[in-house]
Amino acid sequence: MLSHKTEIRVRYADTDQMQFVYNGKYFEYFEVGRTEMLRNNGLPYSLIEKNGYQLPVLETWAKYIAPAFYDDVLIVESVVKEKPLLKIHIDYKIFRKTNGDLIAEGFTELVFVFKDSKKPARPPKFFNEAMEQFF
Amino acid sequence: MLSHKTEIRVRYADTDQMQFVYNGKYFEYFEVGRTEMLRNNGLPYSLIEKNGYQLPVLETWAKYIAPAFYDDVLIVESVVKEKPLLKIHIDYKIFRKTNGDLIAEGFTELVFVFKDSKKPARPPKFFNEAMEQFF
Amino acid sequence: MLSHKTEIRVRYADTDQMQFVYNGKYFEYFEVGRTEMLRNNGLPYSLIEKNGYQLPVLETWAKYIAPAFYDDVLIVESVVKEKPLLKIHIDYKIFRKTNGDLIAEGFTELVFVFKDSKKPARPPKFFNEAMEQFF
Amino acid sequence: MLSHKTEIRVRYADTDQMQFVYNGKYFEYFEVGRTEMLRNNGLPYSLIEKNGYQLPVLETWAKYIAPAFYDDVLIVESVVKEKPLLKIHIDYKIFRKTNGDLIAEGFTELVFVFKDSKKPARPPKFFNEAMEQFF
Repeated sequence: MLSHKTEIRVRYADTDQMQFVYNGKYFEYFEVGRTEMLRNNGLPYSLIEKNGYQLPVLETWAKYIAPAFYDDVLIVESVVKEKPLLKIHIDYKIFRKTNGDLIAEGFTELVFVFKDSKKPARPPKFFNEAMEQFF
Repeated sequence: MLSHKTEIRVRYADTDQMQFVYNGKYFEYFEVGRTEMLRNNGLPYSLIEKNGYQLPVLETWAKYIAPAFYDDVLIVESVVKEKPLLKIHIDYKIFRKTNGDLIAEGFTELVFVFKDSKKPARPPKFFNEAMEQFF
Repeated sequence: MLSHKTEIRVRYADTDQMQFVYNGKYFEYFEVGRTEMLRNNGLPYSLIEKNGYQLPVLETWAKYIAPAFYDDVLIVESVVKEKPLLKIHIDYKIFRKTNGDLIAEGFTELVFVFKDSKKPARPPKFFNEAMEQFF
Repeated sequence: MLSHKTEIRVRYADTDQMQFVYNGKYFEYFEVGRTEMLRNNGLPYSLIEKNGYQLPVLETWAKYIAPAFYDDVLIVESVVKEKPLLKIHIDYKIFRKTNGDLIAEGFTELVFVFKDSKKPARPPKFFNEAMEQFF
């Protein structure tokens, strides 16, 4: 299993007039979560692009359990439970740091494409090798 | 059944360096879709807030089928298939106007809350009455 | 002089917890203003990119005069007062449609670059020719 | 003089198809810069709101000197050069951490308003007292 926790502080720009974080903003938080998970395990996403690949999102889901407020520090927990074959499935849980409240959960499913043609690609060798240690 | 189609033109700001619309942006498109659906059926969301209610998103999902590009005109089709009881479930399909390509599909589930207390509320009478005609 | 008016409806996502549009959002509204001004005068920005150029923003400024609220329809007036030589200077005024209130004013200064090298470029011939009629 | 440096990592969502950070995004970076400057000097913005005030932006300006790329770590330097009387004028410089490149500069001018009425307010006593030590 591959997992990682990272922190994000809610910006004023992230809130809407309902006084908490806009629902669409969480997908940026998920992005930060998986980016830091990959970086922390030797696979910075920028390296993936330098190797000629990209990882577009195929599908995503979020459930909003409690509101996140301006200036809250959130903990984004990203988890890859199963070894990625074609798709990479990442689960997220977002907690409020001060009190541990579960704010939201969700997932994203990503797939490798060739950067130039945008055609689907198998996960490249360097990615599979880096994954070996976790599964 | 309640349904509506509205158009959105993709802004430069909506794209990312993958050269198409960022995955998190679609949730704004869904917002525009349901806002225009409600307005078009005599229920502008601003009226809902004026009556002391809000409609936060409880859950959302999106599947990305084809990329949307800068300056594309998208058609957002919003549909409420079943009469809302406590939650309002809205399905979306997004098409590229020029060629009819299906770009994405998704849903959101919303619930009424009292604007001041943010506590869950039953759908107010004026909302139920407006819904009567569609189900 | 080249000028154009276009309409934008304020999304929920555009507001923040101060209950009006976030200051940074206006730069997207300016983008929509100049995009529609160019399109309306035979120069869709996508055509500029297809010809191998891009128009990054060099400098921008905004003054906020009155708040814009959720669901307001805004009129973005974009004006090019002087024939562009190297830089393109565009002035904006944003009004609330219902009552004509001046909401904000601002400007952006843009410059042509070659799309591939990102090096500064002189305005291309097709752009200069399209500008001829206005100055 | 009051000044502070804070770091921000560029998200994928911040980029556009020009392959660098969208011009409007810098105003969020400025927000983070001033938020952390205030917090670091005993004046978290959330405290200002708790005391019944808000600080909307009156005017803002940015000059883009070099592109910021995905995953860059940026240093946002925020400076208040003169003791705020009615308006608070904050200057910003944004640098790329790896090589010290100046990416952008800008300013924002903010003013206190009463949170409930949104009417202009003089800087509250607790704010003035906190400022004393810097000027």
